[in-house]
Amino acid sequence: FEKSDIQHDAVDKGRFRHFMLKEIFEQPQVVNDTLEGRLVNHKIIIETLGANANKVFADTKAIQIIACGTSYHAALVAKYWIEDYLQIPCLVEIASEYRYRQTAVLPNSLFVTISQSGETADTMAALKKAKEQGYLGTLTVCNSPASSMVRESDFTLLTRAGTEIGVASTKAFTAQLVSLMLLMVTIGKAQGLEESKEKSIAEALEHLPSEIQAALDQAEAIEDLSERFAEKHHTLFLGRGQQYPIAMEAALKLKEISYIHAEAYAAGELKHGPLALIDKEMPIVVVAPKDNLLEKLKSNIEEVRSRGGQLFVFADESANIQSSDGITVFPIKSQYTITAPMVYTIPMQLLSYYVAIIKGTDVDQPRNLAKSVTVE
Amino acid sequence: FEKSDIQHDAVDKGRFRHFMLKEIFEQPQVVNDTLEGRLVNHKIIIETLGANANKVFADTKAIQIIACGTSYHAALVAKYWIEDYLQIPCLVEIASEYRYRQTAVLPNSLFVTISQSGETADTMAALKKAKEQGYLGTLTVCNSPASSMVRESDFTLLTRAGTEIGVASTKAFTAQLVSLMLLMVTIGKAQGLEESKEKSIAEALEHLPSEIQAALDQAEAIEDLSERFAEKHHTLFLGRGQQYPIAMEAALKLKEISYIHAEAYAAGELKHGPLALIDKEMPIVVVAPKDNLLEKLKSNIEEVRSRGGQLFVFADESANIQSSDGITVFPIKSQYTITAPMVYTIPMQLLSYYVAIIKGTDVDQPRNLAKSVTVE
Repeated sequence: FEKSDIQHDAVDKGRFRHFMLKEIFEQPQVVNDTLEGRLVNHKIIIETLGANANKVFADTKAIQIIACGTSYHAALVAKYWIEDYLQIPCLVEIASEYRYRQTAVLPNSLFVTISQSGETADTMAALKKAKEQGYLGTLTVCNSPASSMVRESDFTLLTRAGTEIGVASTKAFTAQLVSLMLLMVTIGKAQGLEESKEKSIAEALEHLPSEIQAALDQAEAIEDLSERFAEKHHTLFLGRGQQYPIAMEAALKLKEISYIHAEAYAAGELKHGPLALIDKEMPIVVVAPKDNLLEKLKSNIEEVRSRGGQLFVFADESANIQSSDGITVFPIKSQYTITAPMVYTIPMQLLSYYVAIIKGTDVDQPRNLAKSVTVE
Repeated sequence: FEKSDIQHDAVDKGRFRHFMLKEIFEQPQVVNDTLEGRLVNHKIIIETLGANANKVFADTKAIQIIACGTSYHAALVAKYWIEDYLQIPCLVEIASEYRYRQTAVLPNSLFVTISQSGETADTMAALKKAKEQGYLGTLTVCNSPASSMVRESDFTLLTRAGTEIGVASTKAFTAQLVSLMLLMVTIGKAQGLEESKEKSIAEALEHLPSEIQAALDQAEAIEDLSERFAEKHHTLFLGRGQQYPIAMEAALKLKEISYIHAEAYAAGELKHGPLALIDKEMPIVVVAPKDNLLEKLKSNIEEVRSRGGQLFVFADESANIQSSDGITVFPIKSQYTITAPMVYTIPMQLLSYYVAIIKGTDVDQPRNLAKSVTVE
């Protein structure tokens, strides 16, 4: 593996074997780009969202987010943030479900779409439906300034990930997460978010590029680890709280490019069924950052271990989980809880990439998939 | 297989090989029991919910449902019904996630828990948390009259499924769905639901026991079909709308008792990743009732077929989907859209049961699982 020092928007692979690997390594730069001019002197200000955005944000009492695939996972992380920091109820739904059912709109709701291309057919149809339904306003978090979704939305937050060529999204996901955090703070400030909270989020974001770089620097160790997955037909990914959607995204990556049947579970749901799948053939990847759920997660880990499952635990260095029979611990450095989802995403992306390399799949163009799903 | 004519609460297996099979066959009677005295002369009236229930229902502007496992799937179906018929926003969340995060409560919200045992630890903790958070009231949909959840809730709707012995829930799920439909109408009537809608739901419910019986009468054909799954390591279940949670429940059943790694997807999400998994080894089960989503589902079926996937389509007799290369169609009779989730559940339960029989697992006591998850 190599570090990226090339312009992240260049549409050639540079020294990387695949666009996907190049795009994974661009992520420190993508975070910097997404923050540029928006995070200044420990303050978060986005001036380009559109006319009257702050008025709408001040009135927002609920948020409905609609997306598909990877963007849907970014939305799910944002739900945790928005309810935790702003105490504003946030509803998240898959576009193909939302568009075809009778939906009930909460009073004073903001409607948000997330799409890398801004052309995803189901998300676009959901946006058109929403415009007839009396939302306060529509906002899109999008990577493509000239897209249909930008044109159709009242407000736009551009993610600045640059051109993403790999079909399996990586840097666009991270840029979405950073953008959603900026959006969360911006809505919060319109409603009187304490300055101390803004400052602590700003501090975490300022350190994010170097934390992502530190995770990327472990690529060789992840490559070694990937050998233990290449012969497997299944994998479970477990997370809790804001890391549960990161487990979902990790499972999707492994599915997309390695064709391994990976599935994510909220760790607390293990006992309600999936534990029956656990045997010595089943690898279980656990996303275990240092937060208030760590002790709960440790008891989930023990449940799996005692039933013979092969555990791979990505844990904070200070988490005090030791490698032992059936448990391989992979240390991650992540000092700030709120940005930990972006940091833990990196080893998950690298893992799926290196497993796919061993399996010899077409990493940048996985079978059956297209980059933008512009038809239903 | 045999039809049940024994008292459904008896705790012996009668003429059935397993409690699970006995409980599957009890479902027409369970539906009758759950409706008794509550559905009279095409009217739905539940008088035993608790003092002031109708006052609270009249004021309800949003509903938060919390559950785990199979009960969580029942909650997801109810969300579609509640938003469609009542236009009341309904939020559904896994108990182990809800209890540990900062949640935002919508004004005038009713808090609903669903649990067969009424003792599920995470759901109980969520209920206790909710009582401190300013909900309008708390209601439990529960199968156990003397349980902790009944004691701790303002209102109780008993599901009357009788004692369920099989660890994998079947009749309790169906009783939950029927109860949630009764609850939905009861809340609706407190807010002026049109009599014609109540009448059409009552009519569908009146026919439900015989529709379930007709599905049970196909057990032998499902047993034959199950041979095509027994050697598989994976299965995908696809649904749309109110049948998406039924696909989730079907996947959970197959996981729990056959140890096959089954996963459900909203059919519209196929193109966003899981399509990469499709090859000729992958069976895909589609729940395809006759409703406004059928044409969309047909195009999803074609996507899978053209990539070599082995399709098993449970479709309404009138759906005009033909068995052909790669597609096995299994006809289901279900005249009423709203109760179709309960009808399509039956072949899914039978399929998981017969696959488990071929695999020789301990059907009533699957490995690693307990009937009630009374610890975290």
